Amino acid sequence: MASFTFRRQFTIEWGHCDPAGIVFNPRFFEFFDASSWLLFETALGVKAQDFPRAYGIIGIALVDARANFLKPAKFGDSVEIISRVSEFRRTSFDVEHRLSVNGVPAVEGGESRVWAVRDKNDPDKITTAPIPPEVIARFN
Amino acid sequence: MASFTFRRQFTIEWGHCDPAGIVFNPRFFEFFDASSWLLFETALGVKAQDFPRAYGIIGIALVDARANFLKPAKFGDSVEIISRVSEFRRTSFDVEHRLSVNGVPAVEGGESRVWAVRDKNDPDKITTAPIPPEVIARFN
Amino acid sequence: MASFTFRRQFTIEWGHCDPAGIVFNPRFFEFFDASSWLLFETALGVKAQDFPRAYGIIGIALVDARANFLKPAKFGDSVEIISRVSEFRRTSFDVEHRLSVNGVPAVEGGESRVWAVRDKNDPDKITTAPIPPEVIARFN
Amino acid sequence: MASFTFRRQFTIEWGHCDPAGIVFNPRFFEFFDASSWLLFETALGVKAQDFPRAYGIIGIALVDARANFLKPAKFGDSVEIISRVSEFRRTSFDVEHRLSVNGVPAVEGGESRVWAVRDKNDPDKITTAPIPPEVIARFN
Repeated sequence: MASFTFRRQFTIEWGHCDPAGIVFNPRFFEFFDASSWLLFETALGVKAQDFPRAYGIIGIALVDARANFLKPAKFGDSVEIISRVSEFRRTSFDVEHRLSVNGVPAVEGGESRVWAVRDKNDPDKITTAPIPPEVIARFN
Repeated sequence: MASFTFRRQFTIEWGHCDPAGIVFNPRFFEFFDASSWLLFETALGVKAQDFPRAYGIIGIALVDARANFLKPAKFGDSVEIISRVSEFRRTSFDVEHRLSVNGVPAVEGGESRVWAVRDKNDPDKITTAPIPPEVIARFN
Repeated sequence: MASFTFRRQFTIEWGHCDPAGIVFNPRFFEFFDASSWLLFETALGVKAQDFPRAYGIIGIALVDARANFLKPAKFGDSVEIISRVSEFRRTSFDVEHRLSVNGVPAVEGGESRVWAVRDKNDPDKITTAPIPPEVIARFN
Repeated sequence: MASFTFRRQFTIEWGHCDPAGIVFNPRFFEFFDASSWLLFETALGVKAQDFPRAYGIIGIALVDARANFLKPAKFGDSVEIISRVSEFRRTSFDVEHRLSVNGVPAVEGGESRVWAVRDKNDPDKITTAPIPPEVIARFN
């Protein structure tokens, strides 16, 4: 478990919610996606739009996403998301997101992502590359 | 595994895609959510907006969602989603979604949902109820 | 032109952008919608989710929206939106939104909204009601 | 007024709707955007993702969008959108969208778009180009 965490607070908007008056589930995956980018740019001290230039990658591509909905969030609710990398592997890593509403756990999210580069032999293809040790070091 | 399946085809829109030119992951959860509603209304022969009246439920509330991204989908791609209930339990069930791009598997999605009703003692609370046998029977 | 303004800053997310790498236009209407709610709750000192209780309204329903796109916004751009009511009428009002990217005007948005209540004779219908003078006074 | 029209029908999804149970306004701009792409690819007989190759353009970039909301659309409603180019100018054009719910006019949308190309002197910049007469001819 990497020790670096990123946390942010925001308020649930009218447009995030569905006819049941609670956040429509794909919105949580939007929230988590944004938090993953912010986690990386904060840990690395590099703007997300500069990752290609700084690391030669296309991005941190998602291969798996999951969420467990414990408690709904409603319009006007204050939410906090705490995100961290739970495991780094050679070319991939897992991100864990804990979203709470008024301090009470509401959604547990998880993502698996890869360090994604263009294939040298076929630039239309995307492949994975080893995550540089200095990147991993920034999370500890 | 329930034998009833729902399948639909559609074309990926410009607005579904991100700066990498591929579908932004939360959109797949939108696609799966819509397919789950359509799976139920087709199996039951009842419009989704009439579920409250027909079954006394608020809806089929999501408690868990997951997706495994095998292959990206791009603007203009023709996709097909095949959905089915993989398991019915007493008050909950699992839905499995298989999305393919030009016949090639691209995203495997899964949802766990509950048969959701208002709590009799506290109408602001949502609780679960047993899924009627005649509902389950429509899927076989 | 009401003198009360609401301003907020935020950063454009990956998921806000389309394959051209710029914000997909419907996102600006999401941004403006959220700013209109925040403009009203800040001016009135009442949480948006409490408007029904405080004013007997369903909400501030949109009847017209428009945007003029002068300059694109990209992933990672810092944007600011400044919002104000440009005109109050008896039962309706106009909101003007000015979105800038790095201080340069990028999108001009406009909305017309109504003070919306349930019809007394048919609660399924929505109708308009006069905006209370004390509401309008809060904007000056 | 160009005589070529594009029409499509679809059903309002749960996730299109807000806590008032009606379509959240930015969704209509998504619907109209998709209809504009479909209008052009149908009139031209060229897939939208092939416009760059076929016409040397980046796309049909939006400079102005507006919508007038006459009547709400709800979950499960069948809607139809009829779209047409209302005017072609040298480098720009207007698209008009008429959305109806069960045959009753519900939203009138309008877009102004430009025939967008990369600037020859600065490929990072986008500029406009004259719309080829053979493109315009396909709409009559």
